Amino acid sequence: MRPTGPLMGLVVVDMAQMLAAPFAAMLLADFGATVIKVEPREGDSTRRAGLRLNGTSVWWRLLGRNKYSVTLDLKRSEGRDLMLRLLDGADVLIENMRPGKLETLGLAPTELHARNRGLVILRITGWGQTGPYRDRAAFGTQAEAMSGFAYGNGHPDGPPTLTSFPLADGAAGYLGAYGVMAALWQRERDPERRGQVIDLSLFEALFGLLGPQATAYDKLGTVTERQGNRSPVSVPRGIYRTRDDRWVAISCATEQIVGRAFAAIGRPELYDDPRYKSLTARLAHIEEVDEIMGEWIAQHDLDIVVRRFTEVEATVAPVNSIREILEDPHFLARETVVTVDTKDVGPMKIQNVFPRLEMTPGRVQWAGRETPGDDNSLWVERLGLSLEELVRLRQKGIV
Amino acid sequence: MRPTGPLMGLVVVDMAQMLAAPFAAMLLADFGATVIKVEPREGDSTRRAGLRLNGTSVWWRLLGRNKYSVTLDLKRSEGRDLMLRLLDGADVLIENMRPGKLETLGLAPTELHARNRGLVILRITGWGQTGPYRDRAAFGTQAEAMSGFAYGNGHPDGPPTLTSFPLADGAAGYLGAYGVMAALWQRERDPERRGQVIDLSLFEALFGLLGPQATAYDKLGTVTERQGNRSPVSVPRGIYRTRDDRWVAISCATEQIVGRAFAAIGRPELYDDPRYKSLTARLAHIEEVDEIMGEWIAQHDLDIVVRRFTEVEATVAPVNSIREILEDPHFLARETVVTVDTKDVGPMKIQNVFPRLEMTPGRVQWAGRETPGDDNSLWVERLGLSLEELVRLRQKGIV
Repeated sequence: MRPTGPLMGLVVVDMAQMLAAPFAAMLLADFGATVIKVEPREGDSTRRAGLRLNGTSVWWRLLGRNKYSVTLDLKRSEGRDLMLRLLDGADVLIENMRPGKLETLGLAPTELHARNRGLVILRITGWGQTGPYRDRAAFGTQAEAMSGFAYGNGHPDGPPTLTSFPLADGAAGYLGAYGVMAALWQRERDPERRGQVIDLSLFEALFGLLGPQATAYDKLGTVTERQGNRSPVSVPRGIYRTRDDRWVAISCATEQIVGRAFAAIGRPELYDDPRYKSLTARLAHIEEVDEIMGEWIAQHDLDIVVRRFTEVEATVAPVNSIREILEDPHFLARETVVTVDTKDVGPMKIQNVFPRLEMTPGRVQWAGRETPGDDNSLWVERLGLSLEELVRLRQKGIV
Repeated sequence: MRPTGPLMGLVVVDMAQMLAAPFAAMLLADFGATVIKVEPREGDSTRRAGLRLNGTSVWWRLLGRNKYSVTLDLKRSEGRDLMLRLLDGADVLIENMRPGKLETLGLAPTELHARNRGLVILRITGWGQTGPYRDRAAFGTQAEAMSGFAYGNGHPDGPPTLTSFPLADGAAGYLGAYGVMAALWQRERDPERRGQVIDLSLFEALFGLLGPQATAYDKLGTVTERQGNRSPVSVPRGIYRTRDDRWVAISCATEQIVGRAFAAIGRPELYDDPRYKSLTARLAHIEEVDEIMGEWIAQHDLDIVVRRFTEVEATVAPVNSIREILEDPHFLARETVVTVDTKDVGPMKIQNVFPRLEMTPGRVQWAGRETPGDDNSLWVERLGLSLEELVRLRQKGIV
């Protein structure tokens, strides 16, 4: 069994820890790249992060999926030498140490490029490789704060709000995988086949997807304030509690949908009311609009609400927790969640590979390897070491 | 002037509207691809979405940047024919109509592939091309609800919370750009050089970056609940108000950083207190920890808080709105926001191109074209039409 998908044949070395960088590497592995995770002998710290199954983190099981695991002591010269030889045969290196740390390990990009000019080097950090904050520590929380996300998330009468999810890391993972592929595309068209260094910061990855904030402020003085579940361009828009104590999300991005939403709650005449007939009018009467929607929804069960809105083609969705997700017919039909087998905890549910490529889709072949160095035979296969040599390196604690 | 970057030479046709799909196309244009936006003669609806400058939306100015604009009436057979001829010379088509709509326009993927087998077709929709909800309308709001994001966003005593930003669309844009590059990579290695269809849904793009929810629930019954600014794996973690009425984000992802954070507020002894000495202990005393942090921070200005935390290498960041972002020395030093000139509203600030590729970085060459069809000369250049023919098509309302 090996990873399968559009990137088969590509070789990626992942020496990164939680969270964005190994996620980027996972996306490449999901699409069939040969991703070799280099861990210290005691195992990557991700193995111990957050909730665990049989001692191994659920994060590791996700981020490590479809990857091979080898161990290496990078601080010893024999270890560094093996790393260099491994990178000689690689297309991509992914790392997320603080700026300068890779260099102190003797793995500076210029040195790596002197040996393998085709290597694409993705460097993910909180603040990037340049600028006055480059040496500061940072995690996703700081990126959410710096990028403007937290400021605009939450309710008007409450504080700026962080998410319960690693949003900046997720965004940086997606963007990093794209950056790697773009650099590889360029390399293949470069007469000298040069790989290049990619500087990706968490705060910019998140800032980059928040829309035209800079333009709106620069030209109009507009700041995106916390607005709870409301929106300045969509009324009604909100999350309402249903009779059966669930929540449902309604939004009306066009005037047509507003009419449908009023029809869904059996009040089509509302759309002829001058108080509700345009976005401007509805913004001026937003409390009433919310009350009308909220009251009707509070008197109906979630199923009914979704059915009524769907029948008239208004936009609606239940607010799911993972509990509901795992039973949702749409998630089931699309196999948005699949089951993967593990040696130590048996079958385990895990999200599928996205997006779906019709011809060469990716696939979850295995979850994060149970034991660091499960694939140390790769040292033999890829570098041509003898088995005796591998045993010696193992005994010396190098691999 | 033309777009520059690693993807120069790649030809992309963008026939998509707000928001994820044109964002994916923008990312390709940012890296130098020739992205041709096909608009109806009255202009893409994005031009009228949300805040406007001189009548043209700030969203259009962002999403349309680095793209060419041509006009076309796809509903007339001559228009369809021109589209087919344009696609004959393209590498990628990006669309986001509801499933089946492309087919009714006579542009079904099988037909397109019969003419140009190498075409990669990225299809972005709310619910994807398959499954029981495929025909439902959906926007980012519904994706935030369905994916589990909204359920876990907000405060424990408040409702599930939507963001003020188009998060699902942003995630889908990033992931879509990656998917396109992966499919192109595969095509270049396919003996028959076949492009493929990519099915990308907003709800899965967001679900895919929320972490190992499915595994945690399946094996441990754990559901990610709304937790405000707290975290089950990092205490203290929060957003606190400073004396000068700003907000600051603190998080302590490791025990070492906890010690530093206590040192930053001049209370290093706290880390020896059994109530605070481990994550478990701090979770049990989370109200006290938050109070200690919050009180000290409330007595100090933001600058002081950031300096004190930074000095001891604890993780900290100011909560910025776009107002502060545009003056932040780190954003300035990295040119995270740049200025682009426009014909109609003069110089305009806009986010830069991320991530940074050292050798062939992208660049903001122009903002969204002021007028639909500004680049209708491309019909002549790319399809070899005569100028007379172009004039005739223009007069007939085809382009």
